[in-house]
Amino acid sequence: MADAEMKGVVLLDLWVSPFGQRCRIALAEKGVEYEYREENLANKSALLVKSNPVHKKIPVLLHEGKPVCESLIIVQYIDEVWSDHAPLLPADPYARAQARFWADFIDKKIYECGTRLWKLKGEAQQEAKKEFVEILTLLEGELGDKKYFGSETFGFVDIALIPFSSWFYTYETCAGLSVEAEVPKLVAWAKRCMERESVAKTLYDPHKVYEFVLFLKKKYGVE
Amino acid sequence: MADAEMKGVVLLDLWVSPFGQRCRIALAEKGVEYEYREENLANKSALLVKSNPVHKKIPVLLHEGKPVCESLIIVQYIDEVWSDHAPLLPADPYARAQARFWADFIDKKIYECGTRLWKLKGEAQQEAKKEFVEILTLLEGELGDKKYFGSETFGFVDIALIPFSSWFYTYETCAGLSVEAEVPKLVAWAKRCMERESVAKTLYDPHKVYEFVLFLKKKYGVE
Repeated sequence: MADAEMKGVVLLDLWVSPFGQRCRIALAEKGVEYEYREENLANKSALLVKSNPVHKKIPVLLHEGKPVCESLIIVQYIDEVWSDHAPLLPADPYARAQARFWADFIDKKIYECGTRLWKLKGEAQQEAKKEFVEILTLLEGELGDKKYFGSETFGFVDIALIPFSSWFYTYETCAGLSVEAEVPKLVAWAKRCMERESVAKTLYDPHKVYEFVLFLKKKYGVE
Repeated sequence: MADAEMKGVVLLDLWVSPFGQRCRIALAEKGVEYEYREENLANKSALLVKSNPVHKKIPVLLHEGKPVCESLIIVQYIDEVWSDHAPLLPADPYARAQARFWADFIDKKIYECGTRLWKLKGEAQQEAKKEFVEILTLLEGELGDKKYFGSETFGFVDIALIPFSSWFYTYETCAGLSVEAEVPKLVAWAKRCMERESVAKTLYDPHKVYEFVLFLKKKYGVE
């Protein structure tokens, strides 16, 4: 391993990845300086394969040469190492368990269902659409009238979910759906999050995400 | 909610569930007294549905009336609430991230792949068998020559994995496989874990688990 990777913080990532963006937002919230390294998933770096031999996936956080994998685990690691300010998880064990529950729910549901929205057609797509609205409605129910999922404090659940907001336009365009009509409070929450520098500097223009998905569609032979 | 559920600790569970067993082992390690309530998954209690409206699954831990869902989140909650002794997660952030990584790996892989071992036949079963051995081999590699996954201390990863050891006989019988021949160190680890009262009192005779799977096979029309 080169000297640069043995010191400080390095993030192996892909610009459009909602999972990588979680880590970037967490690092920005904590004010941690790091080296960003864009990976080419068609030709993964030796460092990525070596650092995440089990899943061989981005994001990987290297901290003083030691790799941490899986985005929600990375965000918790960041919260525990740079614990002196901007806590991402609440201090109370019950509130922590609730935050972990919703972050896990987002992890299990959104990306998988969202992928079906742009990959499938006809009845299967309609089914995915119904499911996607149900998922967002559950999340909106949990948000309620709070400013953030963690009430007044931007935190773990917000970080888990916000990167997907830049995919909403893609989901809407591919599946004929209005996220704002279905979950207006969630869209208002996303706008509030975008007022934070950590989020605004990390997320990309939804049209750019859509272009990326068009490239994926072509790659997978989806019309 | 009845008075009993508002006080102390109640676990909604199913005897054979590896996920529920994780919670029982964690509670036993911490010496927490609790009321065990067996659920009938064909006719879930109103309390279960109300306590876990999102997934409607066992296990659910009720602590002073407040529900915690998802087994690994429950185990972390138990560790954080009863933090005065028998720590399940290590104190060091990097070691914690590693423990979370492997517990997450177990969560994503073992049950799903194990189910394919008894549900499928022919080529699909052979594929699942190959994958299952790969999963166990990765876990054995992580264990190495340590006593437990957390070195000298029985902890989070041990708790995540050990309940599946009582399913090994079922996987072996259904798919024609010798777990011991493939991963002898992992089988030796399971035997060490069984020397702990918390584990021995929680796990069931593998033949009883097999009978349960025969019942599931009949239910799902699997020959």
